[in-house]
Amino acid sequence: MAQNSVADIGVIGLGVMGRNLAANLADHGATVAGYDLDEGRRAAFLATMPAGVVCAGVPELLAALKAPRLVLLMVPAGAAVDALLGSLLPDLRAGDVLIDGGNSHYADTRRRAALAAETGVHFVGLGVSGGEEGARHGPALMAGGTPEGIGRATPLLQAIAARAGDGAPCFARVGPDGAGHFVKMIHNGIEYADMQLIAEGYHLLRHLGGLSYERLAETFAEWNRGELASYLMEITTDILRTSDPETGGPILEVIQDAAGQKGTGHWATTAAMELGMPAPTIAEAVHARCLSALKAERLRAADAFPPPPAAAVPGDLAAAVGDALLCGRIAVYAQGFAVIAAGSARFGWDVDLAAVASVWRGGCIIRARLVDRILDALTRAPDLPNLMFDPDIGALLARGEAGWRRAVGAAVASGQPVPAMASALAYWDGYRSPRLWANMIQAQRDYFGAHGYERTDRPGMVHTQWTP
Amino acid sequence: MAQNSVADIGVIGLGVMGRNLAANLADHGATVAGYDLDEGRRAAFLATMPAGVVCAGVPELLAALKAPRLVLLMVPAGAAVDALLGSLLPDLRAGDVLIDGGNSHYADTRRRAALAAETGVHFVGLGVSGGEEGARHGPALMAGGTPEGIGRATPLLQAIAARAGDGAPCFARVGPDGAGHFVKMIHNGIEYADMQLIAEGYHLLRHLGGLSYERLAETFAEWNRGELASYLMEITTDILRTSDPETGGPILEVIQDAAGQKGTGHWATTAAMELGMPAPTIAEAVHARCLSALKAERLRAADAFPPPPAAAVPGDLAAAVGDALLCGRIAVYAQGFAVIAAGSARFGWDVDLAAVASVWRGGCIIRARLVDRILDALTRAPDLPNLMFDPDIGALLARGEAGWRRAVGAAVASGQPVPAMASALAYWDGYRSPRLWANMIQAQRDYFGAHGYERTDRPGMVHTQWTP
Repeated sequence: MAQNSVADIGVIGLGVMGRNLAANLADHGATVAGYDLDEGRRAAFLATMPAGVVCAGVPELLAALKAPRLVLLMVPAGAAVDALLGSLLPDLRAGDVLIDGGNSHYADTRRRAALAAETGVHFVGLGVSGGEEGARHGPALMAGGTPEGIGRATPLLQAIAARAGDGAPCFARVGPDGAGHFVKMIHNGIEYADMQLIAEGYHLLRHLGGLSYERLAETFAEWNRGELASYLMEITTDILRTSDPETGGPILEVIQDAAGQKGTGHWATTAAMELGMPAPTIAEAVHARCLSALKAERLRAADAFPPPPAAAVPGDLAAAVGDALLCGRIAVYAQGFAVIAAGSARFGWDVDLAAVASVWRGGCIIRARLVDRILDALTRAPDLPNLMFDPDIGALLARGEAGWRRAVGAAVASGQPVPAMASALAYWDGYRSPRLWANMIQAQRDYFGAHGYERTDRPGMVHTQWTP
Repeated sequence: MAQNSVADIGVIGLGVMGRNLAANLADHGATVAGYDLDEGRRAAFLATMPAGVVCAGVPELLAALKAPRLVLLMVPAGAAVDALLGSLLPDLRAGDVLIDGGNSHYADTRRRAALAAETGVHFVGLGVSGGEEGARHGPALMAGGTPEGIGRATPLLQAIAARAGDGAPCFARVGPDGAGHFVKMIHNGIEYADMQLIAEGYHLLRHLGGLSYERLAETFAEWNRGELASYLMEITTDILRTSDPETGGPILEVIQDAAGQKGTGHWATTAAMELGMPAPTIAEAVHARCLSALKAERLRAADAFPPPPAAAVPGDLAAAVGDALLCGRIAVYAQGFAVIAAGSARFGWDVDLAAVASVWRGGCIIRARLVDRILDALTRAPDLPNLMFDPDIGALLARGEAGWRRAVGAAVASGQPVPAMASALAYWDGYRSPRLWANMIQAQRDYFGAHGYERTDRPGMVHTQWTP
């Protein structure tokens, strides 16, 4: 039963993410008012949160909130957010704060923030990472919005956020309007690529190296104690150790090798292209999932095209794969941070990259020992043009480079596809190439399209009359 | 001076593309009415086309046209097309045909066609390839729209189109509404990737193989007489033979290695991801251009990170690179056609893939001997799930595979970036892999996000309780 003006925050959308965040807020002393269109969800909310204030409608929810009001939307990205924004705005007052905690596209968030600002309402785009577990016990939170709006929400968001190793909350205002959702989108792109790298490493060791699942689990567990330590390595080790209750064999052997993809990985690569900032390995990870999904075609192609003859496998394959995973991960985070920097410059966000690294130290899927190094690097040099320039990170690359090449080379020779490992290596090799192939592309474009080109020996565009 | 109802077609937008298409139409006996906001362009139109009807405004242009009227828009994609559509529609009658010959996004064309259809006007989205030269003397034309609307324009479009080797015009109705612009977008994606492959081949032979420009030109010329024959190989040979008038040395040595990118390559990869159909090599080509543009960072990185020690170069490097170019090209066209098939299925376009191949035989940037083989393949088997399944094309892959691996392997070992060659190889290796890495990705997604997964031994989604 709704009471008047007692609740600290209202949550609209009581699916598992909304309910878990609400419970997390309540754990930290907040009185939470909740509303969902679905009566079953309202009942579930009340069942898990007896001290919660369940509301029969949006007006009741608004009435239940202390002023200035704090409303958290946890509804599917897209039309539902616009619909709620439209219906809420007339009833909100200047100074109220509306937080969108869904996976909205940053461009939508920019538009909505501008709309809300017309009436003095603060619209905050909040990237939430960590899945259901994170929402319940400590997510990583990336907020975009006005300092005032986010400031009003900070005590609660800081309280529910995950904690990094040093106890700092994994919450930050990363910039205005769409900055939080942009950073979350890049987080997900990095997640796609790091998952793909790990999956390729597993595949190479299993199908080229012939490692048993026991050895695989030991190898990943060992990696997870070193520079490669991360949440994804940890769960990979668990997965490698898990047996299928039905067959008694390794569970991975009965899991279909056809992966799904949702919007955010693809948004990340699209944003990178729009900004002209390369993120090829994130793109490869998205396309690799699409390729895996063509299972029926792949089976038919496997019949038609036998694999190449067995090639020499490096004796130190596991070490080489470990190097490829670490160097590949560095390249992927470098791509992601460079895209965030490009987005920040384009939209005038002034994103504090060190704050992003700080948030990513806990709660989120891509938390990793590497993120500590990235935070150190960005603290030393906030304007680092690319993470790979940091001396510590560069030293890791230099140390792993030879093994990285051996792993990719063995895969290439033996017909094992490693699109992400190979793409990351080409990114690194391209990045440190003083001379690339693009002079040919510029010549071709000038030849057939009269685009013009720059010369190496003086500024300005020139055009060649290629044909007599 | 405009005269009443004498012109066969009106062209709005008299930039170089519009003026050249108008001149091409006039060459084929059409009376062309032209209009442009810019007075200088109107004058240029009249100067090159004394028999043309230059109009002072859109109403005059419409008045100058025979009924039913045929209007060709050659204005920049985006807002200008919408503005013209809005101002033209009230003055057009049912049965009139409005053709957008710009590089519009197919989704915009779909929307505009639906809008025009409300008043019985036929809106045709026309993909035009071949650049300025093609527009003047024979472009490849890919039309999307109603059979009636395109039928009305067919005599003129067929007349101005390029001719394939067998004399067939490089013009086809490929489907309704946005199908023509979609096909053109994929054309451009293939163009990006094939250019990148060729540029990588040049770079490898130059910087790893140490070939002189004379040998490079001979090598490309020889390739252009065989299976690799194509317009892009032809102009590459010309470029390799061109000297810089200022230095007297090869012109490629003075062309800046930083490439630009416009929208369509990036649209193609975005469309592929939206359709869930892999086109990783097109994506790599877009990102490779972005990477090349970071020239200042690359120079700094080159100082910080020396290349790896010299690795063994295969004695047959040129042959291996030739294999990589042909196999890579096959993979890229396969990706492109698969995305067109996916778009056709998604939007109910019923695209005739053989007609697309037929159009691409002449006039366009990606015309190539391979396209003849693709046309044969699609004529034999219109529902081929992937071009690589065709026996002739598959035989080319089988023949080139070993060299392809050698070229990529040599690049990987020596630190020369070949993102497109490596991506194409991973696509091919992935496509013919009965078992991929995606079981690990599905396990990870189920672990942290409870996404569920399919088993290999029975249908349906299952979820594992991963943690005790």
